[in-house]
Amino acid sequence: MAEGPQQQRVLARAIDAILESYAEHGNINHMDGENLPSRAEISALLDDLVAILFPGYFTREQLDDLTARWLVGERCARVLRGLERVIGRALCDSPETGADGQPCSNATINRRAHDLSIELISRIPSIRAVLDTDVQAALAGDPAARSPAEVIMSYPGVLAIAVHRVAHQLYTFGVPLLPRMMAELIHGRTGIDIHPGATIGERFFIDHGTGLVIGETTVIGTSVKLYQGVTLGALSVSTSERQRDKQRHPTIEDGVTIYAGATILGGDTRIGAGSTIGGNVWLTHSVPQQTTVLLDNPSLRFIHRGRAEAADG
Amino acid sequence: MAEGPQQQRVLARAIDAILESYAEHGNINHMDGENLPSRAEISALLDDLVAILFPGYFTREQLDDLTARWLVGERCARVLRGLERVIGRALCDSPETGADGQPCSNATINRRAHDLSIELISRIPSIRAVLDTDVQAALAGDPAARSPAEVIMSYPGVLAIAVHRVAHQLYTFGVPLLPRMMAELIHGRTGIDIHPGATIGERFFIDHGTGLVIGETTVIGTSVKLYQGVTLGALSVSTSERQRDKQRHPTIEDGVTIYAGATILGGDTRIGAGSTIGGNVWLTHSVPQQTTVLLDNPSLRFIHRGRAEAADG
Amino acid sequence: MAEGPQQQRVLARAIDAILESYAEHGNINHMDGENLPSRAEISALLDDLVAILFPGYFTREQLDDLTARWLVGERCARVLRGLERVIGRALCDSPETGADGQPCSNATINRRAHDLSIELISRIPSIRAVLDTDVQAALAGDPAARSPAEVIMSYPGVLAIAVHRVAHQLYTFGVPLLPRMMAELIHGRTGIDIHPGATIGERFFIDHGTGLVIGETTVIGTSVKLYQGVTLGALSVSTSERQRDKQRHPTIEDGVTIYAGATILGGDTRIGAGSTIGGNVWLTHSVPQQTTVLLDNPSLRFIHRGRAEAADG
Repeated sequence: MAEGPQQQRVLARAIDAILESYAEHGNINHMDGENLPSRAEISALLDDLVAILFPGYFTREQLDDLTARWLVGERCARVLRGLERVIGRALCDSPETGADGQPCSNATINRRAHDLSIELISRIPSIRAVLDTDVQAALAGDPAARSPAEVIMSYPGVLAIAVHRVAHQLYTFGVPLLPRMMAELIHGRTGIDIHPGATIGERFFIDHGTGLVIGETTVIGTSVKLYQGVTLGALSVSTSERQRDKQRHPTIEDGVTIYAGATILGGDTRIGAGSTIGGNVWLTHSVPQQTTVLLDNPSLRFIHRGRAEAADG
Repeated sequence: MAEGPQQQRVLARAIDAILESYAEHGNINHMDGENLPSRAEISALLDDLVAILFPGYFTREQLDDLTARWLVGERCARVLRGLERVIGRALCDSPETGADGQPCSNATINRRAHDLSIELISRIPSIRAVLDTDVQAALAGDPAARSPAEVIMSYPGVLAIAVHRVAHQLYTFGVPLLPRMMAELIHGRTGIDIHPGATIGERFFIDHGTGLVIGETTVIGTSVKLYQGVTLGALSVSTSERQRDKQRHPTIEDGVTIYAGATILGGDTRIGAGSTIGGNVWLTHSVPQQTTVLLDNPSLRFIHRGRAEAADG
Repeated sequence: MAEGPQQQRVLARAIDAILESYAEHGNINHMDGENLPSRAEISALLDDLVAILFPGYFTREQLDDLTARWLVGERCARVLRGLERVIGRALCDSPETGADGQPCSNATINRRAHDLSIELISRIPSIRAVLDTDVQAALAGDPAARSPAEVIMSYPGVLAIAVHRVAHQLYTFGVPLLPRMMAELIHGRTGIDIHPGATIGERFFIDHGTGLVIGETTVIGTSVKLYQGVTLGALSVSTSERQRDKQRHPTIEDGVTIYAGATILGGDTRIGAGSTIGGNVWLTHSVPQQTTVLLDNPSLRFIHRGRAEAADG
């Protein structure tokens, strides 16, 4: 549409006002600094990492004994460069390194980004060994599961735990920002929100998973099974009590099952080994081992065609 | 960054260790076999199928009486080839056909993949007839719904049920893997997790939908309305009881409404026609027809400025 | 695979049947009309808008004092054209303008689309001022939050409220279809479902967010904090009572916190200032200010190794 000088002036004024707001609300800008890791880069990197963790499942290329070495080698080399780039940028953004005004992309940062990237790649075999137990747990735990291929390719919980086991390594290395961005990308794809700080044992199985939340200082044992909508969270903390080193989220011991919609809160809350927490249960205190906790059905009311009855179970 | 021979050796060793882990944890590899259907292929196929089911809504091309025949014909031809490819690969992966070591891509598999693909395309008109009732149910059931366009283009439940009605056909044809992957792709996009095995009647309406889970053997009548966070699930089954042919998930009769966060479990659980299940209710037994089930409010506790009161309703 | 004339006839017949079903079930077609706004266009537009709202966070280009004017100006010009296009198409689809059979793309529609697009761009500085308070609220409210960068780049609630504040403007301008499609795109990415009609005050913080639903006529004050799985919804309305101008969803006053899985329903329900609603609470009536509402724990049952005990807290 043809526009006159008046309309051009209106647009120019709008743009000037936006630029002024950048000066005024600097808190939500990221300007005049090093670039941050971008979501698109991290998303591509995670796709490559998942393809290395579960070879042959998520890519079109065909792997066999002869070609695997080259296809995997090429992908690892690419992942190395990608990791160096995003780890380097994340290290630059940290308050410790970035705040003193000196240029960030220096040899020390680059060296550290390289070393951490190699370290992560070196840990892939041990991450795979644990993921193998996770896939076995899904096959054992869900009557609807037909084959490892079905579990790996269509269970969002497998994707979520695979990425968590990578992001948790970066978290323990002390890399800022990046592990949380990885976790959030997978949260967006699966509805499963695992903070990279959470410690999670072997044979971990999430069924369905949408709405699951696992907080930063949660500790989970082996052979734990969680359903959709479960929250392992913190009791509200006033900002004055903010002690980040203190455990704010629960401990779930070995062999616990927690059904859909249950909420378990607090750093002192411990669910004992072998216990079962029923659907929609809300817990803020510990439960001994081998205990089943259920909602009491009598708290329901049944109304039949307008006639109210007290429910008796 | 320039790296010396020492760093190259470190990377080469890391890659060797990954290749060794492929030999050791073969359960989570897919190598030396036919390719599996890839997510990217299935995603593109679903986009084409949805464009055929709801013509003119999800594509930029403009349809009219003159051009529709060619645009739709071209899209159907493409869908036919796409279906043949992914159905063929899924059939190769099934334990029955793929386990005996003989090459899988043979004339029998190809013929079967072709026949099932044509059969699915032939059923599109009857799937559309049912989807028409689903869209009408959304318009009738949600005061916020303004037009069929709004319902089709912005209700995730419409997308989820459209893909389910396609995936369920493939499930009843006995195609392995593929229906589950279709369901999971839409679960990822909408937060709605419907197992392709579920049987769902006409005039089905999902509002909001995030966190909804419908299990494999669920049976749902006509004019059923489900809200976000509802679970229609199984009671826990020990692996020894795994009877896949038995109904493990509930039956929901005609005209039932189930509000947000309600959980209904078990293959013997039947919700009678015309009943209403309130939000957050947890049910493991049947409910007669025309019954309203609610949480009893008195189970709440009100604390006003530090003073605790027993709630009386 | 080579196919004979018989197979070609089968495909042709299937395509004819699909075209016939387009004539029969016209309710779910969009043919012979103006094009609707497409999801892909709206998705690209939202990416550009978010890049303008939070400069330097979601793009790879590097911004500084010298280049910002041109990079931002170019992006705003592109957003202007994109908005004109999708607003124009949405206006054509509205029952008021599109139903009388006259061609829709006329000068009046184009002028209105242009004016509304400029108006929206002019409001970006004031939207940014409010988003600044939202980011501050996240930093103050979550002990796990480390930096504004982490909050902006990895909290889905920040993305959801940013898009809501834009979509709500278009909703108040009376643009049909488009605000709902924007909301649904972000719902698909984050699991957070905010109707564009909802009125939301400053310092709004959503933690985790998956499964959160906020209905069309909800009114939310300042400094409100919501967790995952919260529903602010309507009590069921029979279609005869459909009064769209009436408030159907709750009012949440200043400083309220609502924990995971709580459900609050009804247009007459008002949660008083400073109150706290506990996890999984289900409320259909008002709560006075400064009140904490909790589920009564005694409604749980504990079964220890087969021995049932009444719970005493």
